[in-house]
Amino acid sequence: MTSAPAQALYERHKDHLAAGLEACATRAYWSPFVESPSGKLHAPGRPEEGKARFEALLGKPFELDQPGETGRVGHEVSPYTGQPLGVDYPHVDPDALFSAARKAMQGWQGLTPEERAGICFELAFAMEEQAFANAHATMHTAGQAYLMAFSGSGANALDRGIEALVYAYKALDDVVPHATWRKSFGRSGIVTLDKAYRIRGRGVAVVVCCATFPLWNAYPAIFANLMTGNPVILKPHPNGILPVAMAVRRMREVLAETGLDPNMVTMAADEREDPITITLLEHPDCAIVDYTGSQRFGLWIEQNCRDRLVYTETAGCNGVVVESLPDPDGAIGGLANGFCGFSSQMCTSPQNVHIPADGVALADGGHWSFEAFGRKLAETIAARTEDPKRAAGLCGAVQAHRSLELIEEVRERVIEAGGRVVLDSRPYDHPDFPDAQTATPLVVEVDAGQEALFGEEIFAPVCFLIREPDRDAALDHAARIAREHGAISSYLYSADRDYIERAQDVFTDAGASLWINMDQRMPINFAAAYSDYHVTGLNPAGNACLADLAFVAQRFRIVQFREPVPAEAAE
Amino acid sequence: MTSAPAQALYERHKDHLAAGLEACATRAYWSPFVESPSGKLHAPGRPEEGKARFEALLGKPFELDQPGETGRVGHEVSPYTGQPLGVDYPHVDPDALFSAARKAMQGWQGLTPEERAGICFELAFAMEEQAFANAHATMHTAGQAYLMAFSGSGANALDRGIEALVYAYKALDDVVPHATWRKSFGRSGIVTLDKAYRIRGRGVAVVVCCATFPLWNAYPAIFANLMTGNPVILKPHPNGILPVAMAVRRMREVLAETGLDPNMVTMAADEREDPITITLLEHPDCAIVDYTGSQRFGLWIEQNCRDRLVYTETAGCNGVVVESLPDPDGAIGGLANGFCGFSSQMCTSPQNVHIPADGVALADGGHWSFEAFGRKLAETIAARTEDPKRAAGLCGAVQAHRSLELIEEVRERVIEAGGRVVLDSRPYDHPDFPDAQTATPLVVEVDAGQEALFGEEIFAPVCFLIREPDRDAALDHAARIAREHGAISSYLYSADRDYIERAQDVFTDAGASLWINMDQRMPINFAAAYSDYHVTGLNPAGNACLADLAFVAQRFRIVQFREPVPAEAAE
Repeated sequence: MTSAPAQALYERHKDHLAAGLEACATRAYWSPFVESPSGKLHAPGRPEEGKARFEALLGKPFELDQPGETGRVGHEVSPYTGQPLGVDYPHVDPDALFSAARKAMQGWQGLTPEERAGICFELAFAMEEQAFANAHATMHTAGQAYLMAFSGSGANALDRGIEALVYAYKALDDVVPHATWRKSFGRSGIVTLDKAYRIRGRGVAVVVCCATFPLWNAYPAIFANLMTGNPVILKPHPNGILPVAMAVRRMREVLAETGLDPNMVTMAADEREDPITITLLEHPDCAIVDYTGSQRFGLWIEQNCRDRLVYTETAGCNGVVVESLPDPDGAIGGLANGFCGFSSQMCTSPQNVHIPADGVALADGGHWSFEAFGRKLAETIAARTEDPKRAAGLCGAVQAHRSLELIEEVRERVIEAGGRVVLDSRPYDHPDFPDAQTATPLVVEVDAGQEALFGEEIFAPVCFLIREPDRDAALDHAARIAREHGAISSYLYSADRDYIERAQDVFTDAGASLWINMDQRMPINFAAAYSDYHVTGLNPAGNACLADLAFVAQRFRIVQFREPVPAEAAE
Repeated sequence: MTSAPAQALYERHKDHLAAGLEACATRAYWSPFVESPSGKLHAPGRPEEGKARFEALLGKPFELDQPGETGRVGHEVSPYTGQPLGVDYPHVDPDALFSAARKAMQGWQGLTPEERAGICFELAFAMEEQAFANAHATMHTAGQAYLMAFSGSGANALDRGIEALVYAYKALDDVVPHATWRKSFGRSGIVTLDKAYRIRGRGVAVVVCCATFPLWNAYPAIFANLMTGNPVILKPHPNGILPVAMAVRRMREVLAETGLDPNMVTMAADEREDPITITLLEHPDCAIVDYTGSQRFGLWIEQNCRDRLVYTETAGCNGVVVESLPDPDGAIGGLANGFCGFSSQMCTSPQNVHIPADGVALADGGHWSFEAFGRKLAETIAARTEDPKRAAGLCGAVQAHRSLELIEEVRERVIEAGGRVVLDSRPYDHPDFPDAQTATPLVVEVDAGQEALFGEEIFAPVCFLIREPDRDAALDHAARIAREHGAISSYLYSADRDYIERAQDVFTDAGASLWINMDQRMPINFAAAYSDYHVTGLNPAGNACLADLAFVAQRFRIVQFREPVPAEAAE
């Protein structure tokens, strides 16, 4: 089976596919999506219409025409208002969902890689069409600031999806559909075989989404799976259902409009009190797991889902090594942005700053003591968060109440351990949402030996200034934590090329990527689709590279047929 | 680090690499190796010299200059003479071996993909240079006939190795070493980042080899791992050490001659009474497992090595569906060869022939009853094995005494169950080796319902003629066994295109490849490198495709660095 509407979609998007292939090859910047919500870039009224679309969803059941509905679930609370969204979603019978997904999968196998690419691009642009509504839904579930919710959970996230689409296409395209093979076999002479190769998906994929970025990791998983022939069941975080539900409903509509079975994309929502994730993952028809979330549950998956193909992105205990400062203002500004950005609730946010006890040299010949560096960073963070409007744009809201507790716990434990609070955390007053759950970064000073305080990811806006014996100890310590506890983005500030090169080797051995001398002209932890590989797979932060061939090549398999061509036909 | 000698090897072999890439893309026939031992294709005296080289190894310690030797092991017995080879090998301390491998890995990481390809091609040609000696070593361990031992365990096996090399090169080549990325960030204007991407192997690979093809699966694993940066520890079967030891010693010599650490390739031999495999697989430094062998141990690996990347090739319970015969002589001849070939000790050998109870139509309008089909096949097998010289060339020897016991057990169980022996198995008299352990195929008739008799792989020359209610039942039964118990090669004989197409769909759903109407002009189960994918990964026969991108892309990971380019330099 091939599909005429799907072929038409390929024709519509083939230039995008070509451009995506080019971007993944050069790893230069590219995006087919509008990244900014600026009114100048959109038709008049679009921002307001998107907001209205979001608001129209509140306080009522979210209809999702999918199989197996057995009841309703959903108790999302907005981190901005503290109020329930009042939306409920289908509670599903997993058996019915898996069964429908497997049925949908049958028809999907006949689509060519080009047709699949056409459909997936169409789905991605359908997502972009609801980027404004998605931004509001993401704000009021994940707590992201508006700008981040629009671009980071919109265009930037869709780009990661397209990147996975492109890599999947490359892997599929590597398998020719037919071949003619001729070989001499002694007295038989030349034997000619007709060979045919058929791509098969592995089975149903369960995509477990996280609370703070409901779709950023979901899009790559969705498109990688659809491209390689696997239906997806999305399992949103109990407080991040709405953006996922909106995506699933729109994707199902597009699939149906294309004459395809919409059950290639379904959703299984749950509530904290009645979780469904393990049931989904242990279902005999679950073939692939794409997981984003805590390291603890990630470990459970790795140990208990051994028959499945598992891709994970878990915690990053991200370190910063400060050796010297070629651009002190740029470094401090960049780091301050990094700690404030979405209140450090990103997997790429820095946490631990390893600084030599005798301070760091500046490019102009000056020198900052350990304390002076910490003071500068704390002052800059304080300045960034002083004006509520600026704080709101930078920090957004804190998704989980647990993060606020963590701040309290860290403060208490640091003081108990003889450390020092350099800058306390405080809630800032959000200008638009007086009841927003907010927290500025807590900056504390500790000794290198007090690793129990900072040796794991603390999912909260917390900055540890770690007093290291010297620059080599700083480097080795940061790298060791990355290797043992996982890191997604590590940072280095140094003007010494020899030291930088050594740091590259040390972090390579630790299996961690390193961002060097990132300044404040861009978010230091910005992860660019088509260009930045995400987790390395060499440390405990997971293995979902987003995307490389390893992210896609195992998701499908090849079945082959061969048949001799009669001698006369083979001439 | 790059290596001048390695660069020279790349220059020497770059045309081979280009030709290999082309072959994998078109999946047409290609080989850089001489497949036949015919004297016409080799320098005078080469066959004799190879035999002498093998004989010179017998009855003495095999010196392998590798770390961690703690004693000697080895009790191989020739299936042709029944006599011990009298060769012993190092018994190793796994810690020392892993430690040396990890050290070797460090230096290897700096080699470019091209340099690695150059080295691996050089290793492969070094293997070809000892193809005659290897053929004798393979005969007297695995039991293969001389011709198969030369080509099937020589050129054909090396081709599978080169195929893996080529796929690994493709996957590595997909990662550019450097990129320049430019993006506008609002008021900051254009930010330019220099990016660098570093390939890293995952760690030490343990390659577990099997008894009947000591190197066929080992070469793909060795080259896939070396290409992607991973050292290999080869673990030969206790009765298949010599060919592996010869390969390891020669590879280590070539590596040392190239100025590289030879500990990228080492061997850990053992004896049945004191096995070392689990110790190797459970070693904390074991990152990758490439396994060929029994389904039972394969399952143990899948369940117990969950932190490792695991590739397996286990059992094939291969079925033949006979619907009708477009070329009766070709089909019967092809099948007879398939059952006799290396006494059915290949993972691609057929076992179960599913035949409609009311027989099969012939192309000329004739018809064979179920019994007539079985009789024709049995007669042809009997004819093939009547002349000892012909039997020797076709059947070779039986590697394991257990296979002879299995023949006895099957005969007994079939008779007990009311089945019928159509052709009994017998030892044939090998013309050159009077004490050879031999067995011609046992052909038995059973009912479809007696699946307990034939529903798993029986590693012995046994042919089940299975009486099926009709052609649809035959198809469904064979496909179900493939899906549930694993199949590497399945076979179909039919003149009905509609039926063939349906069979393709049914076998696709079972995750099994299908060879259609294979006749006697070539071995029906010949698996061609660069063209035939091996196991599909969709049934219990394993997941080692040998080779596709899935076989290589997970064996390495990517570490990244990025650094802003100052504004003036970025112009």
